[in-house]
Amino acid sequence: MPDKQLIVVALGGNAISQPHQEGNVKEQFENSAATAGQLADLVDQGHHLVITHGNGPQIGNFLLRNEVAAGVIYPLPMEVAVAHVQGGMGFMIAQTLTNELGRRGSSRVVNTFITTVLVDLADPAFRDPTKPVGRVLNKEEAAANYEKEGWQTKEVGPGEFRRVVPSPVPINIMEIDAIRRAVEGGDLIVACGGGGIPVARDPSYGLHGVAAVIDKDLASALLATDLDVDTIMFMTGVDRVAVNFNKPDQRDVDHMNADQARRWMVEGQFPRGSMGPKIQGAINFVEASRKPHARAIIGPLGRAADALAGKTGTCITKS
Amino acid sequence: MPDKQLIVVALGGNAISQPHQEGNVKEQFENSAATAGQLADLVDQGHHLVITHGNGPQIGNFLLRNEVAAGVIYPLPMEVAVAHVQGGMGFMIAQTLTNELGRRGSSRVVNTFITTVLVDLADPAFRDPTKPVGRVLNKEEAAANYEKEGWQTKEVGPGEFRRVVPSPVPINIMEIDAIRRAVEGGDLIVACGGGGIPVARDPSYGLHGVAAVIDKDLASALLATDLDVDTIMFMTGVDRVAVNFNKPDQRDVDHMNADQARRWMVEGQFPRGSMGPKIQGAINFVEASRKPHARAIIGPLGRAADALAGKTGTCITKS
Repeated sequence: MPDKQLIVVALGGNAISQPHQEGNVKEQFENSAATAGQLADLVDQGHHLVITHGNGPQIGNFLLRNEVAAGVIYPLPMEVAVAHVQGGMGFMIAQTLTNELGRRGSSRVVNTFITTVLVDLADPAFRDPTKPVGRVLNKEEAAANYEKEGWQTKEVGPGEFRRVVPSPVPINIMEIDAIRRAVEGGDLIVACGGGGIPVARDPSYGLHGVAAVIDKDLASALLATDLDVDTIMFMTGVDRVAVNFNKPDQRDVDHMNADQARRWMVEGQFPRGSMGPKIQGAINFVEASRKPHARAIIGPLGRAADALAGKTGTCITKS
Repeated sequence: MPDKQLIVVALGGNAISQPHQEGNVKEQFENSAATAGQLADLVDQGHHLVITHGNGPQIGNFLLRNEVAAGVIYPLPMEVAVAHVQGGMGFMIAQTLTNELGRRGSSRVVNTFITTVLVDLADPAFRDPTKPVGRVLNKEEAAANYEKEGWQTKEVGPGEFRRVVPSPVPINIMEIDAIRRAVEGGDLIVACGGGGIPVARDPSYGLHGVAAVIDKDLASALLATDLDVDTIMFMTGVDRVAVNFNKPDQRDVDHMNADQARRWMVEGQFPRGSMGPKIQGAINFVEASRKPHARAIIGPLGRAADALAGKTGTCITKS
């Protein structure tokens, strides 16, 4: 492993919003500043970071704002909302890291790329939307929104519904050439925010946004592969990946190879909405990488440098 | 003048929204697509474009959505709103141009940079906010928002008030190194959307957003200077700059030098909210440029190639 690594750092929701908070802008900036401290520790060690992030709570709140104001002002479609949130969150994450680096004596300025990610409308995800977005609806609201907006919903609790959108596989990061050039030039960048803005290609029209959400861990893995990085880090709330989670024989895992990870995936060890995409992203990256030392790390956001050093977290390698 | 020029194209409001329209997303994409046709004509001629744009109607609508939903979900401050709108509009402008280039056989992908622009809190603009943002308020609303949010307002008509924010001078484009690298690498980019997100530097905290609006024409001129472009084009709704506008002796001007432009500015020939910043931006750029052939063009959006060729528009040169 080189001393100075190129690393994709995929920030989970807890990097920006804490579950017990309202999640307002002041709180988001404070959390981002704490996250920036972790990232700056890695930069101080000489590593070159490409930062990606989720947008779960933020896009939900954005769509809620949209919905509440819909009678007064035209709404923004899902994919246009994702683009807006990429701008807003990218600004925040880039600024807080720029400031943290500044406090440590560096004049580097972190940049944000608006990133679109190609998906295939033939992806089975479009026939079976699974990703919940926005607020909880009652039965009448769910029916009314289906009628009016074509929203598909799923019952998430007794009498409680949420809009669900497809979560298709990311195929191609459209801006990859420019992103690669920025990284090769030494820029610290934020890209693929919220998993990227999903776009499909229509033979006559060209590219167009689609109402979907791309999993940010899978998009991050694709970015890591495209940039041929040394390491991808999925920063989250837990110290290590566990098998038999919450059972008497729960076991925290500090290392697994791709075959083992895939077997556990098939066994259903990793829930679809949380650890599953991280493990899948890790497998995708280490198997596609041309670097024998390539690895994925899933570890706690608050101990990024320790996770990179193998003192905490779960490391996934090809073999 | 080189055959293949590096050009900053500053898009005015009419590039995205028409005055007679609601300005919804479908209309914005349609207008952007038409604008993309004009831009692609320039690209087809071999010119290298750096695109900037205003955000007037969009930021107003965004803030209105914010305001209507304020009781339900936390609002986004002005500067965070600008960042969001940069993402949303950049996505749209980049996508429609990418598509137009694709229809013409090119595989180039246009990129959007989230751009922050440094301003000085000692700028006199902060003591005298002049830039109206958001909807028209009645007297009670104006008073309530001053009370609650600290909004300064100005009476824009009998009993009609609008929030006003400072419009400080842009001092430094923070992401300029990355933008320059992208341009030198051959990327077509969108930058400085809405004039850029205004940020100030606090000695202890670092950079932070401020509730202000930077004039997009002045920001575009700064970008043009920093990138040492050949030409800056301010695309707008009129064929040429006029002096004695709407008077019997109105005269359309096809060329002026910086001294003449400044004299007319001092005479009050150019209204502050529309032609004034374009003329000021033109003066700033041609006077700062090291290129003897540097020029600014103010011309009609629908005839971009003609304006570049001198068949329409007003050309401003240093001498």
